[in-house]
Amino acid sequence: MTEKVALTPKTHTTPPAKFSHGVRKGNILQVAGQVGFLPAEEGKPPTPAGPTLREQTLQTLANVKAILEEGGAGWDDVMMIRVYLTDVDHFAEMNDLYNEYLRGENLTQVPPARTTVYVGLPKGLLIEIDALAVLG
Amino acid sequence: MTEKVALTPKTHTTPPAKFSHGVRKGNILQVAGQVGFLPAEEGKPPTPAGPTLREQTLQTLANVKAILEEGGAGWDDVMMIRVYLTDVDHFAEMNDLYNEYLRGENLTQVPPARTTVYVGLPKGLLIEIDALAVLG
Amino acid sequence: MTEKVALTPKTHTTPPAKFSHGVRKGNILQVAGQVGFLPAEEGKPPTPAGPTLREQTLQTLANVKAILEEGGAGWDDVMMIRVYLTDVDHFAEMNDLYNEYLRGENLTQVPPARTTVYVGLPKGLLIEIDALAVLG
Repeated sequence: MTEKVALTPKTHTTPPAKFSHGVRKGNILQVAGQVGFLPAEEGKPPTPAGPTLREQTLQTLANVKAILEEGGAGWDDVMMIRVYLTDVDHFAEMNDLYNEYLRGENLTQVPPARTTVYVGLPKGLLIEIDALAVLG
Repeated sequence: MTEKVALTPKTHTTPPAKFSHGVRKGNILQVAGQVGFLPAEEGKPPTPAGPTLREQTLQTLANVKAILEEGGAGWDDVMMIRVYLTDVDHFAEMNDLYNEYLRGENLTQVPPARTTVYVGLPKGLLIEIDALAVLG
Repeated sequence: MTEKVALTPKTHTTPPAKFSHGVRKGNILQVAGQVGFLPAEEGKPPTPAGPTLREQTLQTLANVKAILEEGGAGWDDVMMIRVYLTDVDHFAEMNDLYNEYLRGENLTQVPPARTTVYVGLPKGLLIEIDALAVLG
């Protein structure tokens, strides 16, 4: 039996319920929905990197990456990312930020598939991203 | 070639279209979006367990579990669950119900990853959940 | 190390950001969110098949299929499809179209699992679909 391992970067705030920020089992790695929270500080509630789409998008992508790395993976292993935005008018800017971020990550493999939809999120949050990776 | 098997618990209403409540192929098991419908009764239309978030959340989780078990899996095998709520104000209560439910399931492995977003659902439904499991 | 391959049918418009229309790695194939765009024509912006749910649903399903086939897969390999609609009132008609389409595809295996939720999409688009397939 292959063990399922929780991926919990030190930078991450405690999940608000019984779920893991990421799990890996064999060569499958799933990253839970990440938002733009800054690295956790003891005694402080989760705090977004800032009110703007730029701040939140870059922080969210960094949070996804931290979980991938905790599981021995990286962006090159990601098969699919799901982007949840709250406003259709944010699509073009999110794409620019996403492209800028991924350029800096120097992928050696083709980029992941992606779906972007527009949903409700908790107040103050503009973006949420989760990811499925296949390692090896 | 590995066969793809449909997972159709006896408790479940017939899907309203050509999809399966769950499928398993090799060690991958996917549960379709479940809602809080009570066990099917012949000649009756699908009926939610009740109008409250509590009733629907617990029934929905039971419906997910029935499909996992039909495929020889359980909560311990679940890598990811996706929770769709209709109202941001339901988040805290859903978490309480979810925690209460999972405590009763006595997981021996780490909990799954999770994403929660706020969407529209058919009238009267407050929650929908799907799940991806990796067995073995 | 297994290579991750981008699946880019000739019919498809260039993605608006650094993502792939589909990726395959080993036996896992992920199709990115597809919409009802007609086959790409050089120098023309992406154009929906038409304003109606019928036109867009059938084109979207055709676009998903093109990516599956680019990866050596077909509908029989699909484990999960996610359907994003913009209007709860479109559910019944989408189901009819979806059933009609899949009947024409002559599946030899059980149909995939499915989740349908109601979200916002870019102006003029009524449906988006992505898919996860397991080959072999």
